[in-house]
This record gives sequence, C-alpha cells and structure tokens, in this order.
Amino acid sequence: MTTSVSIIGGSGYGGGELLRLLLAHPNVDVQQVTSRSHLGEYVYQVHPNLRKQTQLKFVDPAQIEPVDALFLAQPHGQAQHNIEQYAALAGKIVDLSADFRLRDPALYEKWYGEKHAAPDWLGRFVYGLPELHRAELATADYVSGVGCNATASNLALLPLVKADLIEPSAPVIVEIKVGSSESGAEGNVGSHHAERASVIRTFSAFGHRHTAEVIQEMGLGRVSLTMTAVDLVRGVLATVHAQAKPGAANKDLWKAYRAAASENPFVRVVKESRGVYRVPEPKVLAGSNYADLGFEFDESSGHVVSICAIDNLMKGAAGSAVQCMNLMLGLDETAGLEFMGLHPI
Amino acid sequence: MTTSVSIIGGSGYGGGELLRLLLAHPNVDVQQVTSRSHLGEYVYQVHPNLRKQTQLKFVDPAQIEPVDALFLAQPHGQAQHNIEQYAALAGKIVDLSADFRLRDPALYEKWYGEKHAAPDWLGRFVYGLPELHRAELATADYVSGVGCNATASNLALLPLVKADLIEPSAPVIVEIKVGSSESGAEGNVGSHHAERASVIRTFSAFGHRHTAEVIQEMGLGRVSLTMTAVDLVRGVLATVHAQAKPGAANKDLWKAYRAAASENPFVRVVKESRGVYRVPEPKVLAGSNYADLGFEFDESSGHVVSICAIDNLMKGAAGSAVQCMNLMLGLDETAGLEFMGLHPI
Amino acid sequence: MTTSVSIIGGSGYGGGELLRLLLAHPNVDVQQVTSRSHLGEYVYQVHPNLRKQTQLKFVDPAQIEPVDALFLAQPHGQAQHNIEQYAALAGKIVDLSADFRLRDPALYEKWYGEKHAAPDWLGRFVYGLPELHRAELATADYVSGVGCNATASNLALLPLVKADLIEPSAPVIVEIKVGSSESGAEGNVGSHHAERASVIRTFSAFGHRHTAEVIQEMGLGRVSLTMTAVDLVRGVLATVHAQAKPGAANKDLWKAYRAAASENPFVRVVKESRGVYRVPEPKVLAGSNYADLGFEFDESSGHVVSICAIDNLMKGAAGSAVQCMNLMLGLDETAGLEFMGLHPI
Amino acid sequence: MTTSVSIIGGSGYGGGELLRLLLAHPNVDVQQVTSRSHLGEYVYQVHPNLRKQTQLKFVDPAQIEPVDALFLAQPHGQAQHNIEQYAALAGKIVDLSADFRLRDPALYEKWYGEKHAAPDWLGRFVYGLPELHRAELATADYVSGVGCNATASNLALLPLVKADLIEPSAPVIVEIKVGSSESGAEGNVGSHHAERASVIRTFSAFGHRHTAEVIQEMGLGRVSLTMTAVDLVRGVLATVHAQAKPGAANKDLWKAYRAAASENPFVRVVKESRGVYRVPEPKVLAGSNYADLGFEFDESSGHVVSICAIDNLMKGAAGSAVQCMNLMLGLDETAGLEFMGLHPI
Repeated sequence: MTTSVSIIGGSGYGGGELLRLLLAHPNVDVQQVTSRSHLGEYVYQVHPNLRKQTQLKFVDPAQIEPVDALFLAQPHGQAQHNIEQYAALAGKIVDLSADFRLRDPALYEKWYGEKHAAPDWLGRFVYGLPELHRAELATADYVSGVGCNATASNLALLPLVKADLIEPSAPVIVEIKVGSSESGAEGNVGSHHAERASVIRTFSAFGHRHTAEVIQEMGLGRVSLTMTAVDLVRGVLATVHAQAKPGAANKDLWKAYRAAASENPFVRVVKESRGVYRVPEPKVLAGSNYADLGFEFDESSGHVVSICAIDNLMKGAAGSAVQCMNLMLGLDETAGLEFMGLHPI
Repeated sequence: MTTSVSIIGGSGYGGGELLRLLLAHPNVDVQQVTSRSHLGEYVYQVHPNLRKQTQLKFVDPAQIEPVDALFLAQPHGQAQHNIEQYAALAGKIVDLSADFRLRDPALYEKWYGEKHAAPDWLGRFVYGLPELHRAELATADYVSGVGCNATASNLALLPLVKADLIEPSAPVIVEIKVGSSESGAEGNVGSHHAERASVIRTFSAFGHRHTAEVIQEMGLGRVSLTMTAVDLVRGVLATVHAQAKPGAANKDLWKAYRAAASENPFVRVVKESRGVYRVPEPKVLAGSNYADLGFEFDESSGHVVSICAIDNLMKGAAGSAVQCMNLMLGLDETAGLEFMGLHPI
Repeated sequence: MTTSVSIIGGSGYGGGELLRLLLAHPNVDVQQVTSRSHLGEYVYQVHPNLRKQTQLKFVDPAQIEPVDALFLAQPHGQAQHNIEQYAALAGKIVDLSADFRLRDPALYEKWYGEKHAAPDWLGRFVYGLPELHRAELATADYVSGVGCNATASNLALLPLVKADLIEPSAPVIVEIKVGSSESGAEGNVGSHHAERASVIRTFSAFGHRHTAEVIQEMGLGRVSLTMTAVDLVRGVLATVHAQAKPGAANKDLWKAYRAAASENPFVRVVKESRGVYRVPEPKVLAGSNYADLGFEFDESSGHVVSICAIDNLMKGAAGSAVQCMNLMLGLDETAGLEFMGLHPI
Repeated sequence: MTTSVSIIGGSGYGGGELLRLLLAHPNVDVQQVTSRSHLGEYVYQVHPNLRKQTQLKFVDPAQIEPVDALFLAQPHGQAQHNIEQYAALAGKIVDLSADFRLRDPALYEKWYGEKHAAPDWLGRFVYGLPELHRAELATADYVSGVGCNATASNLALLPLVKADLIEPSAPVIVEIKVGSSESGAEGNVGSHHAERASVIRTFSAFGHRHTAEVIQEMGLGRVSLTMTAVDLVRGVLATVHAQAKPGAANKDLWKAYRAAASENPFVRVVKESRGVYRVPEPKVLAGSNYADLGFEFDESSGHVVSICAIDNLMKGAAGSAVQCMNLMLGLDETAGLEFMGLHPI
C-alpha cells in the first residue's frame, strides 16, 4: 500500500530534492507539486534530472487536494500563515522551512526578528532530526525540517554531548563551510558564478539563524557559528572546537563516536590513517543521506575538534525530511534513501 | 535468484563505479574484487562512498574464484593476455577495457600501436552499447565495454545515421569536452589540481583512439575526434558537426531523435526553448546512466550540430557494462541503474 | 605628459578591467568613471582589486567633462545613440560595445535585429584589433572594441588567412569555449553558481552575433561559431576546423604562425612536445593581453585545427582597447599591458 | 643601477612566482635559475606565463655564479645544508624555505622532527615579514621566508596583539582554508583534480608546522591552526577566534586595524556593509601582494573574529620575499609588487 504525498513549493532546491527522493520511494505516490513561478511547466524543465521520470506539472498551491502526507518546502515565513489550512488537507505534515523548528516563540522572535504567526503550533511539531528525536517522530503528526548548518553542527556535537564529554560553560566555536546551493535557487547578490567561483568568503562571523537550533537541541549556552562560503555546490562541513571535561581520554571519544554510528543508520565515523579519504568530506556525500563524523583530540590541552560532513540538501533538508516521513509512517527508516553517493565527483 | 559476480581491477574509477552499481543491484551478489596496489584494504578506504555498504576487501587477482559473471576493469592491454583464464572462471564476461572493442585485428594494431595478443577472441565479443547491439547482447557470453568518448560520439550520431540523414562522404567533426575522471585514478602529468583546475586544454586535436570505435560502429569514413579537457570531474559532451543530405528537414531530425529516445530507455531528447536546461549537459547526469541528446540544424546550409551528454563513468563505462549484463542475464535492462542524477550539483 | 581619460560605464566587467589597466598606465590619468547603478560608490566597492589604488567614485554620465580620450564601456545598443555628444567631449574615442564594430549597416541589422541609430558613423570607426589594423589605428580618432569570441576566432584564423593556406569555399567551423565573465556582471538565468559550476553547456550552436565580425574581418563566407560555456571565470578558447588548400604542408603552417608571433607583440605560438603546457590555454592568460596560438595539421586529409586562447576581458576587450589607445596616441603599443599572467592559477 | 639576482630552485610554484616578479622588477636583473628536474629546459616550458618574457633555461645548482642577491626556493630541509656555500656567492640571501624561520633550534627540532643542520645561522636570519620586522630588514643580510599559513595568521593577529586587545591566556583558534597550490608543484596523494575538486577537507586539525611561526612571532602560548583544503588554486584565508580583554570596544578594534593599514603599504581593511565584497577574500588577491584584513567583534561575549586573506604564493611566499629584498637593498618597498589583482577571477 502506498502513501499519497504532495509538495507545496517544488521549484526550489529543497523541493526538487524532495521530489527526486519521493518519485523513487518504494512506498510513496507523488500526487501534486506546486510552484507559482513555474506554473504549468513540467517539473523536469526546472529539475532536469527528472526528465523521463515523471510527467508531473507544477500546479497552483490553491489546487492542492487532500493527501496522506504533505511536505512544505516554501521559503521561510510562509508555512506559519497557512498551517491550519494545510492541516486540514493531510494528517501528516513535514515542513522544511524554519517556521516550526524552535519550540519557544521568544527564541523565534529573537533570531528571526518578528513575532511568530502561529505560536500555538510550535509545541505540536517535533524537530525533524531522527538522530535526536527518533522515538518522538514515530508518533508525530507534525514535523519540522532542520537547518542544514544546524544539522552539521548538532551531529558533530552529538557524540560529545551525549557522552557528556565537553565543558558546557566553555565557548563552543563552530566553523562552517558551505556550498552555493545553500543560497537557494534564487541566489543572492554574490551568487553569480564569476563572483562566487573560487571564493573563501566568511559571510557571517556571528549570528547565523541556525545557531538557535544548536542552542535548543544541544542545550549549550555559548555557541557561535561562523559561516564561510567555499567553491562547491552541495555540501556543508562543520568543524566544532570545544573544550573537553577534565579526564576525558581519546578512547572515550572513540567510544562516543562509534556509538553514534551504530545507533544511527546514516551516521558513519571517518577517521583513517592513510589514503586520500581520511576525514569526513561533503563532496562524496552528494545525493546521499549520510552524515560523516570525525574528530581529533589534543589530550594535553583538552581541545577537541569534531567534524561533520553532510549534503545540505539531503541530511540537511530533504533527506532528513524523508527519513522523518518513514518514521512517522512506520516504514523502514532508510526507505528511498539508499543512494551511496559517488566517487569520484 | 541472484547472480554471483566478481570484479578484476576494482580500485580504479571504472571499477569503483561498477562496484557501487553491483552492490546496489537487486539481482546480484558481489563475491570478490581485486586490486594489487590496495591489497588487503577495505574497498571503502579507496572508494569512500562505499563505507557502511560493504565489508569487502581487495584481494589478489590470483585468488578469484568461479562466478556467474566476471567484470574486467583493468587498464588497457591486460585482459587480452588472460582471457582464456578468465573464461574458465565465468560463463559471462564483460571487459571494460579497450582490448575487445574492435572486431578487426588490423584496426586494433593501427590505433593501439601493437599486435593484439588474442585476435581469435575479437570475433567472440559483442560491442557493449545496448543502443547499437541490444539483440545480440541478449545472447552474448562475451561483451566488451565502450570507450566513453566513442559512446558520446556514437550516440550523438545514432539518430542521424539510423535515419540516413547525413552525407557519409563529408567530414564529420566531433568536438569532445571531458572531465578529469577520464584520465583515470592514476592521473597524468597534468592532473594536479593546480594545473587542471579551470583548464580549457585541447590535449588531442586528432588521433584519439576512441575514433576507431566510431568508425567501426557508425560506418563513417571521415571522422575526427578533437579532445578538450575542461573543469569538471565526471562528464563528456560530444558536439558533432555533420553535413545533412540534400532535402533533409528539421522535422526529419526531430523524428529521428524522438525515435532514439522512445526505443532506448536511457536516451532522452533535451531541446527546450526556455529555462536554464535547454540542451544536454553532463553535470546533471553524474551517477546516472542517461545519454541526453540534442541538435540544431541550419536548413539553409545543411550544417547539423548534434550533441550528446553522458557521465563517462556510467553510460561511458560502468553503467553500460551493467546494462549489458542485465541483457545477457535476461534481467530488466534498467535494473540497478535507476539513479536519476542530481540537481543542482 | 599624461593623457586624460574617462570611462563611460565603469561598473561592468569590461569597464572594471579598463579601469585597472588605465590606473596603472604610465602615460594616463583617469579623470572620471560613470555608473548609474553604483552612483556615488567608491569604485573599489564594486571592483575590490582597486582598493587602496584610487579614491575615485562613480559619477553620473551627465557629469562627464572633456578629456583627451574617452572609453565607452556600456551595454550594447547605447553608444550609437550618444556618439555625437561623446565626440564633442573627446578627440579620441574607443567604444568597447558592439555598436561600431561592423562597417555595413545592413550587416548590423541582420545580426543585431534592428536598424543602426548612427549609420553614418560606422565608416569613421576602425575595428580595434591591432593585429589586423595596426597602421590604421595609428591615425584613427574613433575605434571600436572587439567581440571576445570574434577575437579568438580571428586570431586563430589570422596566420592561415594571411598566408592563404585555407580553402575559402569550405566551411570553417569554430568551436568556442567560454568562461562565466562573458555573460557580464549582470549575469543571466543560468549564471547562478549552483547552475553554472561544472557546466559544459552548448548554449548556441549557430548564429552568435560575433560571427559577423569574423565574416567581416576574415572575408570568409562559410563560418559558424558554436558556443559552449565551461567552468572558469576568465578565458576563451577558439578551436577552428578548416580545410587546407591542396599542397599546403606542415612547414607552411609553422612559418605562418611564427610570422604572426614575430609581427605582433602580444601573439605567441604554443606548441610543445612535452610538459603540461603544450597547447594554448586561457587559464594562464588571466589578466594578460597575450593571444596564444597553436595548430595541428593532418596533411593527409588537409584538416587543420587552429587554436587561440585569450582572456576575454583583456585581449578580447579592455586589453585590446588600451593597446588601440596606445597606438592612437603614439605611445609604446605595450604600455600598461605588461602583466605576464600567473602560474599556477 | 640594477641588482643581479639568481634563484636556487626555480621550477616549483614559489620559485616560479619569484621569477615572474623578478623578471618584471625595475631594479633587478635575473642571472640564473636552477632546477635539477628540468635541467636545460626553457623556464617558460614549466611556467607558461613566462613565454616571450625570457629565454632563460634552468641550470644546475652547481653552476650558480656570484650575484648581489640570492633567493633560495628549494623544498624544506635543503638550504640549511648549503648555507655556507650560498653565503660565499652572495652578500644578500632570502631563503623561502622553512629552514631559517625559527630562532630557537629546540623549537625547530620540536616542530620539524630533526635537529637543525646549521643552528649557528638561525640567529643571523631575520624573519621575513616586513609588517613585523621592517626596521631590522633594512639592515639584514640574511632573511628567511615566511610560512603562508603563518603569515595569514600573524597578520590577522597583528592589530589585536599590537594594540594589546586580546587575552594572551585564552586559547586562540585559527581556522585556515587553503588552495591547492599550497601542496606544491609535486602535489601529494590527494592532489589529483578528480579527488581535489570541490573538497572541503580538514587535513590537519592540530600540529601544522606553521604554528611554530605564530607562537614565535606573536608571543602567544595557546594557539592552534586547523587546516582545511578548499577548491581554489591560490589563496589562504585565516579566521582567528580570540577572546578580547575586558573593556575592549568595537572602536578600539577599528583603530587597531586602521593603524595596521596605514603603517603597511600592503595591508588593507575590508569591512563593507553592502555589495558583494564586504570581507577579505583571497580570490581577488591572486598575483597581488596585499593582505586584506577584516574583523567582527561581539562586545557582549568578547569573542573576536579576525580575518586575513592573502595569496599564498605572494604575500605568503614570493611577494614578501621580494618586499624584503627591496628593504634590504634600500629600494622602494613596493617596487615590482604593484599588480592589483583581478576582478572578476
């Protein structure tokens, strides 16, 4: 028996990736996909990889019909205005935007600069990272997506926080390097290839909005995210600098990271002593849902460097969303997410 | 029932891609993979995308045991020296190297500069491009791989030649642009990233060895391949310039290209009048087995430009090899080759 | 004694490159630079390489004052409407746009799709490629710029045409590969880094407007330019396929190419038999005014492949414009154009 | 009057860049350049940008004759074995390798893993960063080069340390992103374009040898350098995270950074509130000797982020070396270093 799903907002990068995953998903039947700017076009005219896969055309959001599960993949700030209407259409909703990621309306207002339009709904959503909320997701009706940079940060921190290995009072510095798909299909003033190629551009030293998700999910007070754009299309690498608690030893870290990998089907530890691929790297994750973790620990100073690589459109967006859907529907957690990634690429 | 397969030569790019496809193939069970230079290493240490997919280690070629189907993915010039031995191990063989692509030993000697070591075997192999030899492949035991540049050229020419639309006596100029994975995992003097990034390097104006495969398969006398390296990892674009026969009209070309797409599951026509993706482009084919075709025709002069984009490691190597295996074994031609490619990438 | 110059249209890529060259030019004093969209901004806010080089700010075109020489670097279609006004401001004008490149108003209308607004002025301009019009430039008051793709094509053809080595009746196929700076600072629908990175995109098979400049300057009737975008920012490579006249020998081509290099300070022949850099490559020309030429000749078939690499913003635009100015003013032809380019890059 | 100079080790990237600068230098005459691996080749066969600039060929190091100034551009560990011999050939020596950067033989042994071969010479060398040692360089005979990563780190720290704005006891975390030219012309196992393109590869979390130069020059005890390779050829960006002293205010930082820019001809502050280029970026520095500095300061937490962008082959190697030579010879500090860099690139 297949589940019927539709996507609100399918012409952006997150929506396109969702569509790719859902079209190939063994238990899902995609009904409708919306886009106002590409109304009436075949979805493959916008997402050329979908040619010969589907004859779906983009429809107007007003035409959406009831389905089992609805994915919202609009720009931030929209879903919160229509959530009642969407809830009337589908029993299960996954919203990829930032609208329902934070539990506290005050935290939302602080980081997003305006009051939340549907604060009562915040408590009804589960934060959509299975590595943090697997059990809750199994019974959830409403699930938020995740910020891609927050996800790389949270997963880099997960083994350390779960094993209680770092000083919560010490500052945690997260250096994040990102590709150009993060700026979305519309791009921005610096997205032109001639300006964006070969960059190392630290476009935000402090204050990235995804910081709020790290604070909320990791319970850490002093966290900063520093964002640097580099030359690739897909991928995020988070390098976390933290201070270990006194007495923490290298073997404790190994144990914590191995536990993360064994408990989570899409987490791997990459820490090799030879060859080209010794550390986590996002480029080999393009299209895959894996989060690759690595670490280095200077026992003498207690300085821990924890690294997480993901594909921002997969584990950092559409991949985690589908993984959540699988859990919500009682399907195999990895269904439709088996693509291994490519080498070389 | 699954088919047992092994790969001779699994640490190169073609072998790695084969391994990725075969590990995910629903009807196949990978037994052994060889590599002398990486003997004893886990395959995922060389191909990082295979981590958590398999615990296979590279073994010595001498340790290979009998299987249903054997893939040979060694450098050119090796398989022809061991073909008897390999044929004793497996009833079905697909050789990705250039050793058995040409039917005529004289043609082999002309283009490869030395006598063939097993000329009697040349006639027993079928050229492994399903779009050209689907029926023969269904009953073949021995199948050669295809040259990636030859494949892009042959598929760009296929609709034109099949519909008898071009002048066979006029020169056919094929301009090919290629990525860095074409030079193989070992690379060459110009493979260093600092020398290879941002290049437009016409490394061969005439005489590329794959020309022989275009001559053989298309039956065209005056064909030249001009090779230009550009900055991407995976991908080939062949731009063919040919002279149409008098009377050929635009609609004849449309018909010919549409026929190619309808007869072949992995051929698509890309010819849009708006949007970003109006023409075939290899970047959206990374990891997919599609060949995207397009054309422009100047009716007044008869100048035809035919374009084919492929992933050189897929349709140009491992993908076609698996497609051949599917045909040889009576499986669904597209089994294990469903990956759609990514957008953006 | 220095020459006073101003630039109309300085915020685009051509204008910025002109500014870089003129600020460093030993015989020139830059007075004013215009930009409506960046009015009042420091030029270094748009062109970050000019920081600490000048305190010039962009002014309105209406504020331009009389100078010795005026450069027009606006989008195509503008200069022809204001040429009288500009001629009143400066005795010497170099227009980088396409407005005054063609001598024949009918040819302009054919390729640009509208009537020329100042057809009487077409005959007063000299086509600004010193390799073709050095003597005329020395006495010219009005000089057009050159199309970057036309320049790569014309210089690739120059030795062959000048030595009368190719069949004028045979088709000449020019395959051009270009970087992203060609689309201008405003970019276009496909300029977003995520869509433009790693492309091999044949965006125009026939009919590129620069074809008209090749027809005009080379006197060849059957020329086609096929345009392919590849992943680099600066650079054009033109690969010309032509048919040699009967009897032409390899040594004739060597002689013709060497002559081009010895007669022109910015032309070099690149044809090495070993090392990485055996052929002309645009990447090592970034910022330099050189045109690197190479060729391969198949004596048996008469097929000539001629290659020219340039930096589209230098030899293909601002560099040639400054070279023309030097000639117009009786300065050393190479003044201000000495930058060698970088290796690696 | 010109100064005669020669280069020991001219086929690598540092040596090639030196050669480019010295060939164009108005006060210098290049005599000889050595390379064992390219003996007898024209220098332009290795460095294609030097074609038509010089007819110099690589000679054997044993053939080097006395000159005014000698540059050593060999791999690390060689100059220390021949320093006596070189000192007999030239009164002024600049060694670009790591051999004479550290003053303390024990520090050398700790970071380089072996005893120094000429410890008596360590005290005779001045560390070759003019921004730190301008006065000493004016009277120096022996000058070391600088580590490229150390230079980006030291210059990012310079304003903060000089104005005594940061806590010396708090850890200083330097996140460095680098291009592929850092691995040298020989490259390494991961240099193949197909493996190196699109990477974000944190190849060293702790312990990079250049750390020793930051410790020595900045007098900071707790410094770590974390190295991440990204996809560009030339360029380093250092992002320094430090803790400000209590009471430090944003205006104090502005004052410190502006002072650095006004005291040093090749230092600029980049901190804009609009446009594409708001922060220091290495890509626009390719070929230039500038160090661009920027900062962000969170007054509430005292967290300072200081950024420095350089071209690793220029300010991080050959450019600083020529700047030192200028000072040693009493020439204009900026002679031969005027190239502005390119935009776009």
